[in-house]
Amino acid sequence: MSLKVYADRMSQPARAVLIFCKVNGIEFEEIKVDLVKKQNRLPEFKAINPFGKVPSIADGDFKLFESHAILSYLACASPGVADHWYPSDLKKRAKVNSVLDWHHTNLRRGGVGFVLYTILGPLIGVPINPKAAAEAEKVLTSSLSNIESVWLNENGNFLLGNKEPSIADISLVCEIMEFEVLPEMDRIRVLSPFKKVLKWIEDTRIATSPHFEEVHKVLLAAKSALHKLPVDENYETASSIKAMLDMEIATEL
Amino acid sequence: MSLKVYADRMSQPARAVLIFCKVNGIEFEEIKVDLVKKQNRLPEFKAINPFGKVPSIADGDFKLFESHAILSYLACASPGVADHWYPSDLKKRAKVNSVLDWHHTNLRRGGVGFVLYTILGPLIGVPINPKAAAEAEKVLTSSLSNIESVWLNENGNFLLGNKEPSIADISLVCEIMEFEVLPEMDRIRVLSPFKKVLKWIEDTRIATSPHFEEVHKVLLAAKSALHKLPVDENYETASSIKAMLDMEIATEL
Repeated sequence: MSLKVYADRMSQPARAVLIFCKVNGIEFEEIKVDLVKKQNRLPEFKAINPFGKVPSIADGDFKLFESHAILSYLACASPGVADHWYPSDLKKRAKVNSVLDWHHTNLRRGGVGFVLYTILGPLIGVPINPKAAAEAEKVLTSSLSNIESVWLNENGNFLLGNKEPSIADISLVCEIMEFEVLPEMDRIRVLSPFKKVLKWIEDTRIATSPHFEEVHKVLLAAKSALHKLPVDENYETASSIKAMLDMEIATEL
Repeated sequence: MSLKVYADRMSQPARAVLIFCKVNGIEFEEIKVDLVKKQNRLPEFKAINPFGKVPSIADGDFKLFESHAILSYLACASPGVADHWYPSDLKKRAKVNSVLDWHHTNLRRGGVGFVLYTILGPLIGVPINPKAAAEAEKVLTSSLSNIESVWLNENGNFLLGNKEPSIADISLVCEIMEFEVLPEMDRIRVLSPFKKVLKWIEDTRIATSPHFEEVHKVLLAAKSALHKLPVDENYETASSIKAMLDMEIATEL
């Protein structure tokens, strides 16, 4: 097994890479880089990624970071990955790249800021900041609205009207799943207006099950710890989206 | 001629696409979308890109936006584009993608914020904001430092130690060239500590000359207008980097 994936499952792009590998039967060794313990700043990890970010991979001597670059590399370099994940057709591939590029400065920018300044920041030395959280929420809401009205505005269960998921679906859905750690009222306020988005998250979960649920389990423990709630052993992280979706459908009836 | 490139040359990613097409002899029609006149918000442009951003392209019926996705698409879809621009070797290509992904949340984030809040904002209704400019300058300086110490930290004149430029070189250099419109003291303060960066900008200019200079000429007029300076007809936008580089070399002697 030569592929090593350096990850902390609390990182949404790290989860995206892990889920992609597992769904596609790519053999790899998962190496935990604990962000709270600042293991990403250790010299041995900086030798893999000088910027100290996860996910990073080492495929033999070849080192790579930035999750989108990793996902497209693995999709092309691993035998047996179905074409829909990263189409070889140039136009279809360009569209997937377009979504991934858009992600950086829209959904990711809003999502990371919102979660960081609302709840996760203190774990890594960044104080809670309601003003910055409110600004990030604006970018986030606009991004979710654009996913709903542009990227999901065609027939098909996945982004760009595709019938099967691409690496962009995994990447963007993992970003949104990070909101599981938010206070419940914030998460419902932000996500519940976007019914197509909720349906798409659920479709992506089903398409990548059971790896999706397994890799996201870490969020359940994080949520319990952050909000000082008892751990509900029967609670499934992924099922909370399903619950919100069912609630939405019930409201429509 | 079926390829249409929708651009405002005041946009750094739009310039990157225009230079790439011209250097590679790709036939296209340049369609100006004037951002100051808000032509990007017109319904006819929203039909090309629902987000109203430049650059965007239409290749027959195929519409695409996000400059990195456009550059990689054109590199693959246009006959005769040399391999070094976007290598077909999977590992080399993945490295170029890694730089491009890094660009979004580092150099671009810092650069756009700094220029916007220092000088360009009022043109599009965003007020000058010294505090936001200072925060953006931190991200920008850190990004330039990382280009200098990581991405240019190998032999070869271009990013990743390459001997010939890739689409990442054009994209990142066009970002930095936007600083031409800054007040001179700001531009020198930000850029002059980074000697490898200055040398790399100059090498990229030479590799893409005379298109680089022609496409960047718009910045000269913008600079004159913004700072109420007379237009110096003999002034070459690109030569200002050369001057800073010469100054740096002279300082070392």
